[in-house]
Amino acid sequence: MTQAGYPEMQGPNCPLPISKREMVVIGHGSGGQLTHELIRDVFQSRLGNPLLNAGNDSALLDLSQALPAGQRLVVSTDAHIVSPLFFPGGDIGRLSVCGTVNDLAMMGAQPRYLTATFIIEEGFLISDLEKIVDSMAAACAEARVQLVAADTKVTEHGKSDGIFISTTGIGWARSTPRIAGDQARPGDAVLVSGPMGNHGIAIAQARGNLGFQSNVVSDTAPLNSLVGQLLAEVPNVHVFRDPTRGGLATTLVEISRQSSVTIELDEKAIPIDPPVRVACELLGLDPLYLANEGKMLVILPAEFAYTALRVLRANPLGNQAAIIGHVTKRPQPQLLLKTTLGTTRVLEMLSGEMLPRIC
Amino acid sequence: MTQAGYPEMQGPNCPLPISKREMVVIGHGSGGQLTHELIRDVFQSRLGNPLLNAGNDSALLDLSQALPAGQRLVVSTDAHIVSPLFFPGGDIGRLSVCGTVNDLAMMGAQPRYLTATFIIEEGFLISDLEKIVDSMAAACAEARVQLVAADTKVTEHGKSDGIFISTTGIGWARSTPRIAGDQARPGDAVLVSGPMGNHGIAIAQARGNLGFQSNVVSDTAPLNSLVGQLLAEVPNVHVFRDPTRGGLATTLVEISRQSSVTIELDEKAIPIDPPVRVACELLGLDPLYLANEGKMLVILPAEFAYTALRVLRANPLGNQAAIIGHVTKRPQPQLLLKTTLGTTRVLEMLSGEMLPRIC
Repeated sequence: MTQAGYPEMQGPNCPLPISKREMVVIGHGSGGQLTHELIRDVFQSRLGNPLLNAGNDSALLDLSQALPAGQRLVVSTDAHIVSPLFFPGGDIGRLSVCGTVNDLAMMGAQPRYLTATFIIEEGFLISDLEKIVDSMAAACAEARVQLVAADTKVTEHGKSDGIFISTTGIGWARSTPRIAGDQARPGDAVLVSGPMGNHGIAIAQARGNLGFQSNVVSDTAPLNSLVGQLLAEVPNVHVFRDPTRGGLATTLVEISRQSSVTIELDEKAIPIDPPVRVACELLGLDPLYLANEGKMLVILPAEFAYTALRVLRANPLGNQAAIIGHVTKRPQPQLLLKTTLGTTRVLEMLSGEMLPRIC
Repeated sequence: MTQAGYPEMQGPNCPLPISKREMVVIGHGSGGQLTHELIRDVFQSRLGNPLLNAGNDSALLDLSQALPAGQRLVVSTDAHIVSPLFFPGGDIGRLSVCGTVNDLAMMGAQPRYLTATFIIEEGFLISDLEKIVDSMAAACAEARVQLVAADTKVTEHGKSDGIFISTTGIGWARSTPRIAGDQARPGDAVLVSGPMGNHGIAIAQARGNLGFQSNVVSDTAPLNSLVGQLLAEVPNVHVFRDPTRGGLATTLVEISRQSSVTIELDEKAIPIDPPVRVACELLGLDPLYLANEGKMLVILPAEFAYTALRVLRANPLGNQAAIIGHVTKRPQPQLLLKTTLGTTRVLEMLSGEMLPRIC
């Protein structure tokens, strides 16, 4: 079979199996024959399971039996528009699974089901789509979640940017005591599961924005196993939160407002990998505002801090965990940083945008 | 306060309340201060409820108590990229709520919770965003669903197209007997809740593609109340399906394959509004392949067909319902159309794309 060029390599009359066709065309979003082929050949072959493959408008979940007593259903959703789509340590597929898995895990929930929508630009390479879906399938296996419903739409060339993926996760969490951003209490310790800023620098590097060589790799990873291990040993966690967009500082400002407490951070205790620190110094970026994708904050009563630290460090995803601060009661909710110079300054939320399309 | 032009009308240092700022900027997607303002001023003020306003990474649902005995959880997801964003009879906001509500309803489910992601192009007018969110809020009220989680991302100008909205719905349906695309049986009657093709023609018209005047209005509507009324009187429904992308023909080909049956349609029984028929004739479009957004197919044992017809017609959303065909057993699954000329032809799935970005 000769490769006869663009017109024969795509479209409804293309004689090739879909994996041999070059690119996504508008017809793949029609709901017709091409959509069916794309779903069958690219998605179901990689992410398929009886719920997804049933091919109905909705997936019927077996939760009436599975929801354990005293547990409540938790749901979370995220759009992923990261650019570039492939970066050191991950791609938009891995990110879109981990991002939503982690949002559920941050409520202390165990994620179980995932749904996904794909908005694809006409002309997107089928081979890239396959890589992304492979990556989603691997991340789903890692996080032990099942993709149960999906939808694919195609825009004209130039009306989107490669691919956008929105995911929604469903899982369950204990009803009480609640784990949430408004549960931080004076006397709590603040821990972080590892070094800050790797995802942000990895994305900047993948964009060619660094202006120098760096080997920083994104930390994108599902955190639900780490959360499960921690809760098994230390059920008294008050807050979990993953410091993604806006970074550590923005996330802790949020929590200080939700809980009406002051949080004091010790700058020298915050783990930052040396290449990330160097990149930040060269570029004038603050690592406390850089995005992370496989890290979490843990806020819990100080007496459990060292047990939590031990559990976190025993897992490869938390082996550089650290106690970075504590919660106090002050007249107004705020985030304070005790700097390496011994001074104290107030940290605000990220204002504007440091690195757009980081996730 | 004087309106000092573009730079002062947006951005992190803009002194105006968000409703007075002109457009969405990249910083609205940063996860920082601007994102918080957008969420509070545009989304929470219109769609807010205690679950959404909690501001955590996930929403904790109270389903452990609410899920009735013998019911199962149902989930569905859809991306919406309709162009233009505003069209006669609706907009992307109404569409994104109704589309997912209807996917759940088509499993016989009662939708309860909705999540949404917004991918917004830099420069999008805040006033348009407010209109769209108002429209979502109205549709949520109409369908009696609650938006419980959402996410907002912003792309650079030219990297998306105004706004894309992905919604995921959660509801519940009876466990048995199942209502699904594989449940059509020989001897069943096929009904449709109203005339075909209005949404497709309304969109073509809104794009200025018709080349002539028309007053066709999109049928976008939530069908869950109609489904609830029908199931209360006729529990024996085998299949519900909304003929959206790909239209009536593609949808019925799908069902014939899922159920391994032949479906025979009577062309003259299929309701089509005269202005839609005229537009189709002038443009050479087949109304059986045009998208619909507020219509459904009902397949059920023939002895219940007239009761079902009565129930459908008693509701304004089904007042032009009709019995349009029946299910038979043949050597191979297919969709046959008995034409107005008395001939019979095989209908296939839509091949390629008739009207891209219809939903």
